[in-house]
Amino acid sequence: MTEKFRDASLTPSERAQDLLPRLTLREKVGQINQKLYGFQAYERKDDEIILTKHLTDEVEYYGGLGTLYGLYRADPWANKDFETGIVTELAPKAYNKVQAFVMSHSRFGIPALMSTECPHGHQALDGYLLPVNLSMGATFNPPLIEAAYQVCGAQMKSMGVDLGLISALDVLRDPRWGRSEECYSEDPYLSARMAESAVIGCESQGVLSVIKHFCAQGEGTGGVNASAARIGERELREIHLPSTKAAVAAGASGVMAAYNEIDGVPCHANSHLLKDILRDEFGFKGVVMADGVAVDRLNELTGDFARSGALALRSGVTMSLWDVGFSKLEEAVEKGYITEEEIDEAALAILTLKFAQGLFEHPFLDEETATPTFTYEKYPQSLNLARESVVLLKNENNILPLQLDGVKSIAVIGPNADEVYHQLGDYTPPIKESQGISLLTGLKTLVGEDVALHFHKGSNIMDGTQEELEESVKLASTCDLVILALGGSSSRFKGAKFDTNGAAILEEGSLQMDCGEGVDCAHLELSGLQNELAERIFALNKPTVSIIIAGRPYAIPRIAEATDALLYSFYPGPVGGQALAEILLGKISPSGRLPVSIPYSAAQLPVYYNHKTSYPAMVYHNEKSKPLFSFGVGLDYTTYNYSEVAANTLTLSKAELLKGTCFTFAVDITNTGDRVGAPVPLLFIKDNQASTIRRDRELKSFNKAFVQPNETRRYNLALDSEDLSVWDANMQFTLEPGTFTLTLEDKGNIIWTTQIEVTP
Amino acid sequence: MTEKFRDASLTPSERAQDLLPRLTLREKVGQINQKLYGFQAYERKDDEIILTKHLTDEVEYYGGLGTLYGLYRADPWANKDFETGIVTELAPKAYNKVQAFVMSHSRFGIPALMSTECPHGHQALDGYLLPVNLSMGATFNPPLIEAAYQVCGAQMKSMGVDLGLISALDVLRDPRWGRSEECYSEDPYLSARMAESAVIGCESQGVLSVIKHFCAQGEGTGGVNASAARIGERELREIHLPSTKAAVAAGASGVMAAYNEIDGVPCHANSHLLKDILRDEFGFKGVVMADGVAVDRLNELTGDFARSGALALRSGVTMSLWDVGFSKLEEAVEKGYITEEEIDEAALAILTLKFAQGLFEHPFLDEETATPTFTYEKYPQSLNLARESVVLLKNENNILPLQLDGVKSIAVIGPNADEVYHQLGDYTPPIKESQGISLLTGLKTLVGEDVALHFHKGSNIMDGTQEELEESVKLASTCDLVILALGGSSSRFKGAKFDTNGAAILEEGSLQMDCGEGVDCAHLELSGLQNELAERIFALNKPTVSIIIAGRPYAIPRIAEATDALLYSFYPGPVGGQALAEILLGKISPSGRLPVSIPYSAAQLPVYYNHKTSYPAMVYHNEKSKPLFSFGVGLDYTTYNYSEVAANTLTLSKAELLKGTCFTFAVDITNTGDRVGAPVPLLFIKDNQASTIRRDRELKSFNKAFVQPNETRRYNLALDSEDLSVWDANMQFTLEPGTFTLTLEDKGNIIWTTQIEVTP
Repeated sequence: MTEKFRDASLTPSERAQDLLPRLTLREKVGQINQKLYGFQAYERKDDEIILTKHLTDEVEYYGGLGTLYGLYRADPWANKDFETGIVTELAPKAYNKVQAFVMSHSRFGIPALMSTECPHGHQALDGYLLPVNLSMGATFNPPLIEAAYQVCGAQMKSMGVDLGLISALDVLRDPRWGRSEECYSEDPYLSARMAESAVIGCESQGVLSVIKHFCAQGEGTGGVNASAARIGERELREIHLPSTKAAVAAGASGVMAAYNEIDGVPCHANSHLLKDILRDEFGFKGVVMADGVAVDRLNELTGDFARSGALALRSGVTMSLWDVGFSKLEEAVEKGYITEEEIDEAALAILTLKFAQGLFEHPFLDEETATPTFTYEKYPQSLNLARESVVLLKNENNILPLQLDGVKSIAVIGPNADEVYHQLGDYTPPIKESQGISLLTGLKTLVGEDVALHFHKGSNIMDGTQEELEESVKLASTCDLVILALGGSSSRFKGAKFDTNGAAILEEGSLQMDCGEGVDCAHLELSGLQNELAERIFALNKPTVSIIIAGRPYAIPRIAEATDALLYSFYPGPVGGQALAEILLGKISPSGRLPVSIPYSAAQLPVYYNHKTSYPAMVYHNEKSKPLFSFGVGLDYTTYNYSEVAANTLTLSKAELLKGTCFTFAVDITNTGDRVGAPVPLLFIKDNQASTIRRDRELKSFNKAFVQPNETRRYNLALDSEDLSVWDANMQFTLEPGTFTLTLEDKGNIIWTTQIEVTP
Repeated sequence: MTEKFRDASLTPSERAQDLLPRLTLREKVGQINQKLYGFQAYERKDDEIILTKHLTDEVEYYGGLGTLYGLYRADPWANKDFETGIVTELAPKAYNKVQAFVMSHSRFGIPALMSTECPHGHQALDGYLLPVNLSMGATFNPPLIEAAYQVCGAQMKSMGVDLGLISALDVLRDPRWGRSEECYSEDPYLSARMAESAVIGCESQGVLSVIKHFCAQGEGTGGVNASAARIGERELREIHLPSTKAAVAAGASGVMAAYNEIDGVPCHANSHLLKDILRDEFGFKGVVMADGVAVDRLNELTGDFARSGALALRSGVTMSLWDVGFSKLEEAVEKGYITEEEIDEAALAILTLKFAQGLFEHPFLDEETATPTFTYEKYPQSLNLARESVVLLKNENNILPLQLDGVKSIAVIGPNADEVYHQLGDYTPPIKESQGISLLTGLKTLVGEDVALHFHKGSNIMDGTQEELEESVKLASTCDLVILALGGSSSRFKGAKFDTNGAAILEEGSLQMDCGEGVDCAHLELSGLQNELAERIFALNKPTVSIIIAGRPYAIPRIAEATDALLYSFYPGPVGGQALAEILLGKISPSGRLPVSIPYSAAQLPVYYNHKTSYPAMVYHNEKSKPLFSFGVGLDYTTYNYSEVAANTLTLSKAELLKGTCFTFAVDITNTGDRVGAPVPLLFIKDNQASTIRRDRELKSFNKAFVQPNETRRYNLALDSEDLSVWDANMQFTLEPGTFTLTLEDKGNIIWTTQIEVTP
């Protein structure tokens, strides 16, 4: 039999179809397995990489290896650091050693795919890191996300990574969730724009994006991680599916199923989701990866690993992650739980990917050429995101930007003032000191020599001592103004224990993080002594700028009331401290907008802005009837004049819209202040009549660009058929004739409102 | 044309079918309308009843009247009291005057139906009142509910009421909801048992029950009244439909649609709910009543009253309530929004009801015979419910029942110690002082003359003064023990403003209630100064018994910790004070069990016990991972010995179960203490494998009966096919073979556990 699959002139699909029938059932099952923890596949001795039995046993058993997860992963769970893990310069050697072993144990020399975590940059030693998704969402600037993921993609590619696992799909509906940071927004439209940008950036470098999590993980009951999404299909479609639809349309090669159930059916057992919707409706052609050990959690339904593997496969999962279930698929075939044809289908998808990636032609990295390093100096994309992500929520008497004339000393106080790890989210590798810029470091660089900077952390995130608190207050009392940096931490570097899937385990006293996977909270107040610290600082009556660096919205009504200025910075990444310092000192202007509403308290949840019109949301006798800060707000250092909005038309027929005609709007915005700034006009619709209940407001278009003092710039916005369609009473996505009220908002103000009509 | 409809020997259906074609469209539309507020249909001058234009205009316009709502309704919203409203002795005169006017303006002499609120007893002057539903749920004693509704039914019947509107369907999933009190439980099984009992009791007296609300109103977003239930159909079916299914099977003649939407579709526009499920699946043959002005809320979809009326009618609503929409149905026919045949169908149902009620034969009440009065002395059913509803949650050192030897004085402190209105829920008529027994009054009756009772309210529910608080603490400090009565209030009698549907409107400062329709809360702590009052009382270190009288679970961890004994009494009704006093003094034994879990705080919601098994519920880094008190707990004054449980079998085939064979269990319980008590063995199942994710525990059988000291009594429990079936992956209700883990619990303890199997 001619080995046609070796013919590179054939298509990947043709080659895979030729190869597949040559494989035994076990070899095929091996191809769809991703059971190993890549960071356990090796040990490093000085500069030597030694493969472990964890790897070699698996490869020998299956006669090859489907996909290796996390060869480069480094973090406290992986127990890899700069001493024990794969630093950049060792990557080609390590990669090649693994690949050579895999290929040499495969009868047909099939290479392994490499997958890696890239939720906010590459979770590897020397990995290029980004602000977390919530921070990216705050930029309202999709091209920045695309540019940043190009860098991540390039780095992953240089290290031989095929599949980058990118958090891109979760929508933040309950901020108690520890993974809030991994969501772009509470809004489906903004989430979709960001998700597609991440995909485009990553895939442009030849690294396949595996976007996660599909679906509705942000809807967990009580904000508990991976808990039941109890929503109906319309809520699912309106809020949680748009990000996936957009990311698939943008070319995502992979989708990771989510841990949670939706109305009783786990995503990993949900063929309606993984097949009817993802493949048939969205036209997705790629692979569906399981989440870590999620297939085994189906034992709750099946009682048995082999049945769980079969159920997941049959429901549409193409490849495993760490689970036992998929490793029992041979048994599942023998017992009749699944057919070999069903395994063939999944294996074919994997083999096709391997051919498409060119792995058969170029299975190895070049060990002679140095692997490029991706520094933040050379690649400012991470910094650019950070710069545009910071949200200015209060600026009494224009205290910001700080005027340092006459200021002799600044107290920089708080647990988040000088901890780069507290600027990073969960899924973060160890970093070298030189790789990060804390707020304090950023300030030191920018504040001239005439001003003394005095730092005291005041307390830790989760605890502290009264002595330290007193010391910090005393220090602040001697200074001319105070910068108070509070917030949360998703850092696992100060003590945490881990579950089999790497999520943190809650254990009293051991935890020095209050956010991140597995670290959900009930109360949304700042942890530890931070509120007390804040009250003591405010009592000094010094000019005070408060900065919240966090992975979720915290309930901070007192701080918002008592501080002179308030900046909210969702974990802004390794060089976020520089961005914050630049904003404080007016080197740049803040331009972030809240991608999520901030509540007065957890008792008030949910507080997302896009609630249904069938009731008055958040009306309680003992709490405010609005969030502390709502989605979309954010101030800056200048003022604007907004022209009349020019619309191409206020009426379009259904037929015209379906043919592709859009409502378009243009507004000329003039910067009337004396500092640069970025208006972010947000266009919200309210559908006035429909066959199903609509929402109070829905973001459907936005535009962001900087404008210099005295400069005028045109901002274009548009609404197309999809923006105006609804999931109707028969669960069809339909453009229903009727009127829509539009509001154009910026900086929390309505700058224009009108009504448009879709005629029958 | 012979007027066959006048022939009483024909069936109601035959008569209605004869009458219907004789009516004009307007007359038919009139029959399905219930637009009037009955309490505005008349004015009372001394003992004369004068009909108002509110009534006469409507009757004249339609040539008759379909149904008159609330002729007897009296409350602050109705603005009727003992001076201005219809007291019992005037009822026949008033009723007859209305009915005569209606019949004399109908070409065929068609009488009106009378409907009235009976959510916890008849909301009329001298109405026989009951504890609220949540209190009834706590009894775990369905026969008591049935007996109580027999009394209510008899009273309504004596006043000519045809339709009693009974809160029976809502399931409490978020205690922030002000209508929590109207739910029996957080549990669907307990709710179903209570709902069917209420229906049977009411209908047994010839009064038709209109059960409400259908459906899922307890699932509102954020606990906000009438807000969106965002759940999927499986959650709907598992949690919210069982009460309706059971109540329909028990013979409910009417169902009221709920205000809320379910996943985007308002219940009033939901033909899947009102037709496919209610009629086709449940076999419901009765009338579907709209909730107050709910049809008009469909304007949110339609933009227009006539379209809203048409949409509701077409979706399955048979009769209106207060709305404009149904009054526009003539216009709707003219404009082609609906056909006359669709109106005929609804009108036929109403006419059939009128014939079935015998209204054509006996349209008037006998004014010669005195209308019976229903006193709590003569009818102890309300007291019996109250007695069994109180839940003892803590009893340190058996401080209860109170031993008064050596006790010279008792301080009775708190805003709920001497306010009968605070023992009643929302939807309460004015009552005379002689008609209620507060806790203080109850104690005065039972405590001997040797003990001095000193009362001080300490504060109001919602506010108070420091002076009063100090006075009460000072008073308590002089006494030997303290009874502290705190909680909430749904009383509208101290100031509230009302919406068009009678719900309270929140307005700062005006509100002296913190529960009831329209009074939702974010924070679940006790209102006003009550926590401060409690802390001050506890600081006295006197033996202290705390009693929470409330319409919802409040977050009371500090009180639970600091008090010696804790009783939770969901509004126990007009004579609840007697029941509480009897329990405090050991005249009777507490036997209530919590029908709803009590959280540590609102931040922890949801805390219901029957969460899905796909995740660990309530696991947060900054809150307890369980409720303060969980569903089903409750103590008493004695101890029990539980025998081995006898099961008829531990294995049954699917076929046997489907044929009607049950698993049956019997446990002999011996009272080993020296006081009477009521074990309430609760049988929970955990379905170990299924095609959809199951729940941690599900109550499926319970039994309650009192047992004397040294007495042994057998408690039987059973599981049938329905108890063990699930809504499977294809949304079919299916008995799936597999094992189930059973736990039998009482007083919060597991007394037995086993495994049963359903074989294929």
